[in-house]
Amino acid sequence: MNDIIYLDNAATSWPKPPAVLQAMQTCMLEYAANPGRGSHQMAVKASRALFETRKQVAKLFGVRNPNDISFALNTTHALNQAIKGYLREGDHVICTNIEHNSVRRPLEYLRKHRGIEISYIQNDKTGELNVKDIEHAIQQNTSMVIVNHSSNLLGTIMPVGEIGELCRKKGIKLLVDAAQSAGILPIHVSDMNIDMLAFPGHKGLLGPQGTGGLYLHPDLELDVLLHGGTGSKSEDIDQPNVRPDRYEAGTQNTVGIAGLNEGIKFVLQETVEKIHARELLLTRKLMEGLMGINGLTILGPAWDQPRTGIVAFNIKETDSSELAFILDQSFKIAVRSGYHCTPLSHATAGTMATGAVRVSPGYFTTDDEVDALIAAMKEISTQYA
Amino acid sequence: MNDIIYLDNAATSWPKPPAVLQAMQTCMLEYAANPGRGSHQMAVKASRALFETRKQVAKLFGVRNPNDISFALNTTHALNQAIKGYLREGDHVICTNIEHNSVRRPLEYLRKHRGIEISYIQNDKTGELNVKDIEHAIQQNTSMVIVNHSSNLLGTIMPVGEIGELCRKKGIKLLVDAAQSAGILPIHVSDMNIDMLAFPGHKGLLGPQGTGGLYLHPDLELDVLLHGGTGSKSEDIDQPNVRPDRYEAGTQNTVGIAGLNEGIKFVLQETVEKIHARELLLTRKLMEGLMGINGLTILGPAWDQPRTGIVAFNIKETDSSELAFILDQSFKIAVRSGYHCTPLSHATAGTMATGAVRVSPGYFTTDDEVDALIAAMKEISTQYA
Repeated sequence: MNDIIYLDNAATSWPKPPAVLQAMQTCMLEYAANPGRGSHQMAVKASRALFETRKQVAKLFGVRNPNDISFALNTTHALNQAIKGYLREGDHVICTNIEHNSVRRPLEYLRKHRGIEISYIQNDKTGELNVKDIEHAIQQNTSMVIVNHSSNLLGTIMPVGEIGELCRKKGIKLLVDAAQSAGILPIHVSDMNIDMLAFPGHKGLLGPQGTGGLYLHPDLELDVLLHGGTGSKSEDIDQPNVRPDRYEAGTQNTVGIAGLNEGIKFVLQETVEKIHARELLLTRKLMEGLMGINGLTILGPAWDQPRTGIVAFNIKETDSSELAFILDQSFKIAVRSGYHCTPLSHATAGTMATGAVRVSPGYFTTDDEVDALIAAMKEISTQYA
Repeated sequence: MNDIIYLDNAATSWPKPPAVLQAMQTCMLEYAANPGRGSHQMAVKASRALFETRKQVAKLFGVRNPNDISFALNTTHALNQAIKGYLREGDHVICTNIEHNSVRRPLEYLRKHRGIEISYIQNDKTGELNVKDIEHAIQQNTSMVIVNHSSNLLGTIMPVGEIGELCRKKGIKLLVDAAQSAGILPIHVSDMNIDMLAFPGHKGLLGPQGTGGLYLHPDLELDVLLHGGTGSKSEDIDQPNVRPDRYEAGTQNTVGIAGLNEGIKFVLQETVEKIHARELLLTRKLMEGLMGINGLTILGPAWDQPRTGIVAFNIKETDSSELAFILDQSFKIAVRSGYHCTPLSHATAGTMATGAVRVSPGYFTTDDEVDALIAAMKEISTQYA
């Protein structure tokens, strides 16, 4: 461990529950063979580790069949698989204007190269979305709605259940980007009518980097993004349509997924509700402290509104990276600055010139650490406000 | 550690040098933040870990600029990026008929959906390739040659330097699948005229699963497979053409890549030449022992010919998975059976009915372990031969 105050959990959560690293060690030392690629005990144990983690993911998201979950390098990989695997030429897709580049860039690429149409719904300045606006944007050729569950800049929570209900009624598929909500907000794919759910392993699920995945409704079949060996139906010239093999070509990250298993176990044990409540408490404390600082503007929903553990702010026109640099160098506080891969959200929030400082406490963040950030910002602000 | 005799290094090498796990532990405990996504010390340290590993890869493969290497989930991911990112409608591609499904399936997909043409060159039964056959297959629209550096079933080594020379003369791009050669055979991308090199991190480079990558010649630009956040040029609607960011969307597997760094360091220290010599010695010892067994047929090049550390065999018409099962259950010896994701190679070798047992010693395999495999096969053979 180090003596840094880590408030960048929306990028990658840190630290992890100790069991995560322990599981990774055990895997590396005892059974890090190729899962599903051999009949020997170590390979079987590796396969089992993948399946155990799949079961945990299924339990957490209300998925009936664990094999409807395929692992991925990261959320971006899962989103690309879902978006490029589902949308066809002539399709229309609706998303919000606070999506991450991992949604926007694949979509804009398909607009250019596959002739799809995109409607960006106008969220308000705090990121709030009116589901009616989605309904109004529906066209005859609308085949998909994509929405982040929670904004990675503003912390705003999207009404996914309500959107799911709309999509179900209209026969449109719903893809949810759970980058900022998996392990932090309750998610139940069937209750919320989610057809595809892309999630990271290294954020709210408390696993290591290099993990993440995609839930895919059993009735859907996607065009495959990564073709290759699956260990099953090797003689087929096509990717087999067996799940999860179809979407998991090549050797999977067994050691990472073994670690992720322990991260999710921790989440299930503590409960998502308790984790969210704790993060909300820290977030409100943080906002309360920051609100009193002269010249500082907090983005996103008001203090008493729902949000995830993300608080982004600016001090007047100051470049956000300058503020983050001072926090790092003089106070040993780790936050993120800049555009957070979501220029759409900055355009929405009106912060394209400055970017923003993003503070994201996690479940292991202490009250003292939040106090330290507030005190640091008070001190820094005197030079800029 | 366990008491298993592990002879499945062609699937995933095991065990790893102890420094690999140590580096992963240090990363998880001290700096597993999001690389390139923040200005704080932990994020900077994570970025540096990625760059350090990139430098090692560059050193090993004779790459001038480490940023021409992008990391990937596995070799399959890298091959899909290269193949789908390079081939255009109407292109003709030449590959061998001992390619892995990670080459064949993407190609067949493009044949169906992008209208490319494919020529499979006829290797002989042992996997040997005549470069003249590639030359004869060249058409006006040939834009790419794809070749595995070493067969994952037969152990045969392809004359990559010679093929590279041919490709250079003809102005055709060469993609090499180094799944079975990275860290085991000398590779120098400029000396060998390799334009793209896909490599795994978890085999000959002795790193953990979830790692691998693609070298891309500086003059080439590929269509992007995974669009998303890059931490750079966030405001661009397109994927930036900055390397390696362009091909590394989303959060990378920092902990895995930190481990890989130590794996490659070990390879560089021992030298590829010494590693290959050791594996060849073990392989020849293994073949010598197996050759005397009644009814047992070894696939691939003859005893005294060059090959990598892969020895596949059959006992008459016996199902290979049955043999592997007995080795595992009665002798605690881990090998692989079946088709090894390369039905093409089995068709070439004439083993489509049985599959094959594949024994793949690694650098840490002992002479005693090879002897144990030979003794076990002698015993098993009495029931089948």
